[in-house]
Amino acid sequence: MRVLDVITKKRDGLVLTDLEIKYLIHAYTNDEIPDYQMAAWLMAVFFKGMTVEETASLTMAMATSGNMIDLSAVSGIKVDKHSTGGVADTTTLVLAPLVAAAGVPVAKMSGRGLGFTGGTIDKLDAIAGFKTALKPDEFIHNLQRHNVAIIGQSADIAPADGKIYALRDVTATIESIPLIASSIMSKKIAAGADKILLDVKVGNGAFMKSMEDAVMLAETMVHIGQLVGRETRAVLSSMDEPLGQAIGNSLEVEEAIAILDGRGEQALRHVCLFLGAQMLNMAGLESDVKVGYENLNTLIKNKAALHKFKEFINAQGGNVDVVDNPKALPQAKIETKVICSEEGYIQKIDAAKLGYCAMRLGAGREYKGQEIDLSAGIILEKRVGDHIEKGQTLCTIYANNEAKIKEVQSLLVDAIKIDTKQVPKTNLILGVVDHYGFKNT
Amino acid sequence: MRVLDVITKKRDGLVLTDLEIKYLIHAYTNDEIPDYQMAAWLMAVFFKGMTVEETASLTMAMATSGNMIDLSAVSGIKVDKHSTGGVADTTTLVLAPLVAAAGVPVAKMSGRGLGFTGGTIDKLDAIAGFKTALKPDEFIHNLQRHNVAIIGQSADIAPADGKIYALRDVTATIESIPLIASSIMSKKIAAGADKILLDVKVGNGAFMKSMEDAVMLAETMVHIGQLVGRETRAVLSSMDEPLGQAIGNSLEVEEAIAILDGRGEQALRHVCLFLGAQMLNMAGLESDVKVGYENLNTLIKNKAALHKFKEFINAQGGNVDVVDNPKALPQAKIETKVICSEEGYIQKIDAAKLGYCAMRLGAGREYKGQEIDLSAGIILEKRVGDHIEKGQTLCTIYANNEAKIKEVQSLLVDAIKIDTKQVPKTNLILGVVDHYGFKNT
Repeated sequence: MRVLDVITKKRDGLVLTDLEIKYLIHAYTNDEIPDYQMAAWLMAVFFKGMTVEETASLTMAMATSGNMIDLSAVSGIKVDKHSTGGVADTTTLVLAPLVAAAGVPVAKMSGRGLGFTGGTIDKLDAIAGFKTALKPDEFIHNLQRHNVAIIGQSADIAPADGKIYALRDVTATIESIPLIASSIMSKKIAAGADKILLDVKVGNGAFMKSMEDAVMLAETMVHIGQLVGRETRAVLSSMDEPLGQAIGNSLEVEEAIAILDGRGEQALRHVCLFLGAQMLNMAGLESDVKVGYENLNTLIKNKAALHKFKEFINAQGGNVDVVDNPKALPQAKIETKVICSEEGYIQKIDAAKLGYCAMRLGAGREYKGQEIDLSAGIILEKRVGDHIEKGQTLCTIYANNEAKIKEVQSLLVDAIKIDTKQVPKTNLILGVVDHYGFKNT
Repeated sequence: MRVLDVITKKRDGLVLTDLEIKYLIHAYTNDEIPDYQMAAWLMAVFFKGMTVEETASLTMAMATSGNMIDLSAVSGIKVDKHSTGGVADTTTLVLAPLVAAAGVPVAKMSGRGLGFTGGTIDKLDAIAGFKTALKPDEFIHNLQRHNVAIIGQSADIAPADGKIYALRDVTATIESIPLIASSIMSKKIAAGADKILLDVKVGNGAFMKSMEDAVMLAETMVHIGQLVGRETRAVLSSMDEPLGQAIGNSLEVEEAIAILDGRGEQALRHVCLFLGAQMLNMAGLESDVKVGYENLNTLIKNKAALHKFKEFINAQGGNVDVVDNPKALPQAKIETKVICSEEGYIQKIDAAKLGYCAMRLGAGREYKGQEIDLSAGIILEKRVGDHIEKGQTLCTIYANNEAKIKEVQSLLVDAIKIDTKQVPKTNLILGVVDHYGFKNT
């Protein structure tokens, strides 16, 4: 097999065989194919696309390029949940203890963030002592004992994906549905869960800006799951405004605690309960998702979920005190309120702009390996549709550097549009895709 | 300027500025941009194309990436001629002395071949002692004194094109009109001639298989010439059957001598006279191309062209004896006739297959730097439309290795289709493209 023939075939819009895709990916991972040929192939895929069978082949070739985790020692149906990423997306920190408290084993492998704010592993760093670099046997042990464990993604999980993603990043080949779908699915499959729930974010603060693209991505991933024998379901949720009220690592941990404690804003709680009910359903614990939703709500009300969160933190060496005393999380030295200068209704909160502000404050990374300021971020006081009066607080900025606050202040005001016209609240859950197709919710 | 933005812009089908293209090409030539980013950009160009203004910018960026030859010391309008390459394309060896004899200075920079047969420089190697590695002052001196000089292309002419072509070759990005056009034109422009005549070959033995593609390529190059101030004209000529009767280096030199001596087949002579008349016209020597054609024919009949060929060989250190005694050229040890087994008319002579056979016999290169057998090749006895009887010679194979002859024998028979139906002779000149557009001839 010659790589030039594989590039030419894709360039000419033909369908590659499983063997051709396997050869390409494994030879590239073993440095037998140079970056420039892979780059040409990726750009050809950008233009010509891939069938779902090709995408499934690519997914499995990347998944099997490294270690495949075996969770068979953990009893029960393991359901993994993955979010395509957004602003103030604190769902994992809520869902992991919540669903575990309901009896579903949550074996989660997470990454660090690039862009807006940190990833789940960065957020957990805000809890002093919390260890995400677990050894495989510690991970299994914690799962068996506590029903929940989160580890950082190691380099030997789908290394082909890591290498290809780095190349896509510098060759303008990120924005391709089959490449995005296979990248996500390869890591989830290698991570060993039996079933996969995807939270596909849609909107200006998400990677998928349009509903059409988001549905196509969701359908592709669900179809891949079907082809490779891992049931996959996708929830489409809005990322036009930030999901939670907190943007930033410490601040998001604090918000997750509030949700688990029965406090906090309705929006984040609703999305967490909805996603959690899908996980319960997929795990075979509750066939009616509405009942599952209410059961999970009960676990919040009776503090079982909060208790599980403490148990989870303790099991991974973190300081449990943060749950009862959020001031034990890293705190910013400066706190500046942004005051509203007009009366009206919140028309729009630009998630992408707010994410950018949080990153500039230090909560996210502009380049790989950059150090994060865990204490920095923004707390929003309002949501789209809320009424606000002149002189009320729009949001609060947390930072350790006056210059950075100055830089983002006007950007923040610009990101939040106010007008006298009354507007409805954002519809958060936009639909579900399973192997029967897309369903509006 | 960021290379990722330039790739993204082209990927999204936008038009690049002259500055962006200059930056890309010069940074790539200086190894400041890695191959994988250039490969992604080239594949984006393959899919999205380039405007002729972008293509002209690319041409000039590559032309100015190295040495720009200055021919101002040579008086008269210098017209360069370039063929896009085909099988038995012996035009340069005929045209150079012929047009020089008519008074047009022929300053030609040629390359070695890859594929079917050798390039002009390989063919000249068949003349013992012939030196194509002239120093710049020798080149100018020979031009001033003899009106003709041919040198091998040096590495410092359009080095960006050399580097990019090598990358295109391994990334399936050869077949792109703007990339082909800019590659050819950049070298011609750097080589210093005032005007450029292109011989664009069309047909199964040529790079451009269809008339449509060939016209588009010709129009692009003529338009580039117009934009950068070097008048360019293109002749479209057929390459469905081989142009000359000889395929192979020594054999083609021998055929060129025959044409210059007033012997040889009509087809090659006609194309050479037609191209030569265009060169005379572009140089301002003869406004009527029909008159130019006849004038050149007279220079063949009165042996002035043959005399100029001897002068040219002598000036570059070659053995002039070959002109009167072609046996002084490298001779193959084995000569095998392929005999026709049926009576009828020649329907088709597959130029690509014959070229492949000649290459397998040793006349061409399968990989860069491969040594050529100058004596090997094929002489065709018939052309399309000719009548042939059973037992007559179809062609003669020249080689130094029995096994190679065995390998190509049946392929050759297969490449020449015979049937009882009478068919017309191939129309050799298919049209001319100048700055007024395409003209059927």
